[in-house]
Amino acid sequence: MKYELVKNAAGRLVPTEVNGKPQVPFQGVHGYKPTGNKAAPPIASCSDYPMDGNKIVGSIKEALEKAGLKDGMTVSSHHHFRNGDLVMNQVFDAAAELGTKDLVWFPSAAFPCHEPITRHLDSGVLQYVEGSLNGPLGKYVSEGKMDGLAVLRSHGGRWQAIQDGEVHIDIAVIAAPTADSMGNATGDRGPSACGLLGFGLADSMYADKVIVVTDNLVPFPCVPWQINGQNIDYVVVLDKVGEPEKIISGTTQLTKSPDRLYIAELTAKFVQAAGIMKDGFSFQAGAGGTALAFAIYLKELMIEEGIKARFVRGGSTKYLVEILEEGLTDYILDGQTFDLEGVRSMRENEGHLNTSPFTSYNWHGKGNFASLLDAVVLGATEVDVNFNANVVTHSDGQMLHGIGGWQNCLFSKCTILPIPAFRGRIPVIVDEVTTLVGPGELVDVIVTERGIAINPLRTDLIEATADSGLPIRTIQDLKAEIDDLIGGVPQKPKLTDEPIGVVKWVDGTVIDTIFKIEH
Amino acid sequence: MKYELVKNAAGRLVPTEVNGKPQVPFQGVHGYKPTGNKAAPPIASCSDYPMDGNKIVGSIKEALEKAGLKDGMTVSSHHHFRNGDLVMNQVFDAAAELGTKDLVWFPSAAFPCHEPITRHLDSGVLQYVEGSLNGPLGKYVSEGKMDGLAVLRSHGGRWQAIQDGEVHIDIAVIAAPTADSMGNATGDRGPSACGLLGFGLADSMYADKVIVVTDNLVPFPCVPWQINGQNIDYVVVLDKVGEPEKIISGTTQLTKSPDRLYIAELTAKFVQAAGIMKDGFSFQAGAGGTALAFAIYLKELMIEEGIKARFVRGGSTKYLVEILEEGLTDYILDGQTFDLEGVRSMRENEGHLNTSPFTSYNWHGKGNFASLLDAVVLGATEVDVNFNANVVTHSDGQMLHGIGGWQNCLFSKCTILPIPAFRGRIPVIVDEVTTLVGPGELVDVIVTERGIAINPLRTDLIEATADSGLPIRTIQDLKAEIDDLIGGVPQKPKLTDEPIGVVKWVDGTVIDTIFKIEH
Repeated sequence: MKYELVKNAAGRLVPTEVNGKPQVPFQGVHGYKPTGNKAAPPIASCSDYPMDGNKIVGSIKEALEKAGLKDGMTVSSHHHFRNGDLVMNQVFDAAAELGTKDLVWFPSAAFPCHEPITRHLDSGVLQYVEGSLNGPLGKYVSEGKMDGLAVLRSHGGRWQAIQDGEVHIDIAVIAAPTADSMGNATGDRGPSACGLLGFGLADSMYADKVIVVTDNLVPFPCVPWQINGQNIDYVVVLDKVGEPEKIISGTTQLTKSPDRLYIAELTAKFVQAAGIMKDGFSFQAGAGGTALAFAIYLKELMIEEGIKARFVRGGSTKYLVEILEEGLTDYILDGQTFDLEGVRSMRENEGHLNTSPFTSYNWHGKGNFASLLDAVVLGATEVDVNFNANVVTHSDGQMLHGIGGWQNCLFSKCTILPIPAFRGRIPVIVDEVTTLVGPGELVDVIVTERGIAINPLRTDLIEATADSGLPIRTIQDLKAEIDDLIGGVPQKPKLTDEPIGVVKWVDGTVIDTIFKIEH
Repeated sequence: MKYELVKNAAGRLVPTEVNGKPQVPFQGVHGYKPTGNKAAPPIASCSDYPMDGNKIVGSIKEALEKAGLKDGMTVSSHHHFRNGDLVMNQVFDAAAELGTKDLVWFPSAAFPCHEPITRHLDSGVLQYVEGSLNGPLGKYVSEGKMDGLAVLRSHGGRWQAIQDGEVHIDIAVIAAPTADSMGNATGDRGPSACGLLGFGLADSMYADKVIVVTDNLVPFPCVPWQINGQNIDYVVVLDKVGEPEKIISGTTQLTKSPDRLYIAELTAKFVQAAGIMKDGFSFQAGAGGTALAFAIYLKELMIEEGIKARFVRGGSTKYLVEILEEGLTDYILDGQTFDLEGVRSMRENEGHLNTSPFTSYNWHGKGNFASLLDAVVLGATEVDVNFNANVVTHSDGQMLHGIGGWQNCLFSKCTILPIPAFRGRIPVIVDEVTTLVGPGELVDVIVTERGIAINPLRTDLIEATADSGLPIRTIQDLKAEIDDLIGGVPQKPKLTDEPIGVVKWVDGTVIDTIFKIEH
């Protein structure tokens, strides 16, 4: 180990250095104040770009060569195609053909479709991957095979890291469902339409070189220009950049479990009882099955009471689109389309708006959208008795999920985690979370099938719902009952003292470490 | 004089220092290659901003105090209200009340409505104004009364100067026809709607502190967010921020002069004869009377031949809006609405798009829209026999106009200057321009009522129009005839060797100096 482990403000051991870069330990939710200035990309000149705007080159390989790909560089990408991305495997195959070594891949997230990339990690084309790791890449890292730590960031944290110069992107690759030859690009139309390209926006603004890869070239101007051609160096045209039917990942199916449907219903009733659901209110529900069911229940309550929201936040799904198209909200502020109805709506509905991690989530801006939400409904793998929550590892210590916008959303006026009391025979409420991802002071309500626990800090919510008839209990009560049913608290996983990854807080500090499991 | 005058690549004498900042002399159209990195604004933290997004403060004065207004700071503003701005006089009155001295005002342009600000120049509240100066402020500077040089930049050059850190803005003030309490703002709606806010975009992104001033506060979210609340520090609500009826400045009236109508018609016929007017083509015409008449003639020719443009560029006027609404173009790419029909269309028509100096004009980007235009029609105060052109001074040496987007537009595929042979009894074609604003190699065609001159560099245009029947002549011929009619070349104005201002090229270098007139 080249670094020390120090205890941060949450009492968690975190490394002082990650992948050769010094780190600041978490200092509390509002503890860390950044100093200094944003990253400053090189000044370009139109003299170095074609006056007719045509930046098309023949192949990904040619674009990488022209962009000056060299050993050790950082190459970034967005994940709007989710498990349907067809570009990044080709990018690293081309890098391998060019004989490049020790690259860092900095995706906004990796998916099972990127399994072939483990080959490039094995061969040394890639040194490590820095970004949310789902599926085979997550497993690869969990097994300690990667030469470098996983760095898990929220969507807002990724913007912050790029903006603040913590991560310098040498070459960004932006897969675009529609683009013009200048590199103006959009995700909302074309045969591979995926909705929007917000996760690639910071990359396009801050990377030294930016390559747009499209399968639908249109005459200038490509409208809307979600990505500005003025930030693009090269355009590559392929037959197909993505499989939009695969943007529907496993998490976006409505739950059929009676327990989870009950949890979703309880959550909606809580929002109503607490007085949050009123004209002009706002909410965000994730794309997990329970969160989707919550949105459907809440919609019914809104119709019953004749209430209209000012805005709802996506990840958009057909359920949110229905809320918009039935006139139950003025706007969807969308950061990521989770199904093809979301894509269609973004293209067709004026009230379905394209947002980015800058507008929605960046903690190092002058405010963001996330803290304006009246209520947000999120998932969690574990919650502890102090309302601390985990979303990246399970109680067995396996690193399984990215953070997504989860940490950023905790700043809403009321953060609600509807979670099952058990997963398998493992209780979800624990004494201490395996990995701290969200500090308890930001988690307001836990809803399980065995009752609702309100954070004692939120006396306002406790008072508002006191006579609601809802099954409101203390979290200690809830935990005791659950543990009792299982017959005692299960063993904690045996972890080594070898870090395999770190979890960043929204301000770039390190809130926790993910340790390798003992085998 | 604290600086030297040196000869630049155009043979013009330019100062090595302007207002205390070292300058690079013009090095030819493609000669100067920037090095280094863009300006890097301070990193902010959401911890320092209200979690509910409400940034409203009580008054302009309070906002300036909170923003830390201090002696010597640079305060910026946009000119989308043109002569109807009601905010900036109040800003400097408040600065005076606060006892501040030696401020620099950095507007994208000043107008006659800002005449009261000369008082603050006299009293020392303001040290100097850096920006396009129209009307009383232009006169004030021309008379040598300002303690500092005027720095004339194109719209793109202003973006470049901010982006490259040549001008650091301490406090930006953004008058906004509609905004929410977080500072998201738009120009396209509200009682003072002025269309868009693109001239304030760089200010909002790069200034240390940014104040939005609105008279139409809407619940979050203000849509569209032409200006991002994530860049805003304070919001001030006033009764009225602008008089939109005054955005129609003197230049946007259709000409009634038979000579100028003839010039406009000739220009349209030239565009047709040169083969530029074909399906999918693009053009930009300024808001001067002749340019507007050109657009009307061209529209007739397009209808006759059944031709549709891909895009036209504004400054939008009702004439461009008609072209869009009659289906003769897919898009208006608009940088500035010049009348209320333009404002309405921007709000209502999906094909009427909001652009900024970044997308349209910034030379220090990876391309921009201006060089994609098939033809651009611009005004000029003087043109010389080498096709060099002037747009800021008249032949009498008076500094009268800002550059606007003029220099940036010169990069179109065919730049046409329709100009009268005389203004009063002063010929417009001269041996050498009083002030060099546009290098001759970028000016392709001069159209006067006495004939058309094509730049000899454009053999393609000369060939294409050889058999057109249009009155095409050499510029020398044209000049000789005009001089002959007047009875000889008029005296040049007597200029002192005292600079009162400089003209920047699009890359930030100094292309020429404006000298004080001898009295």
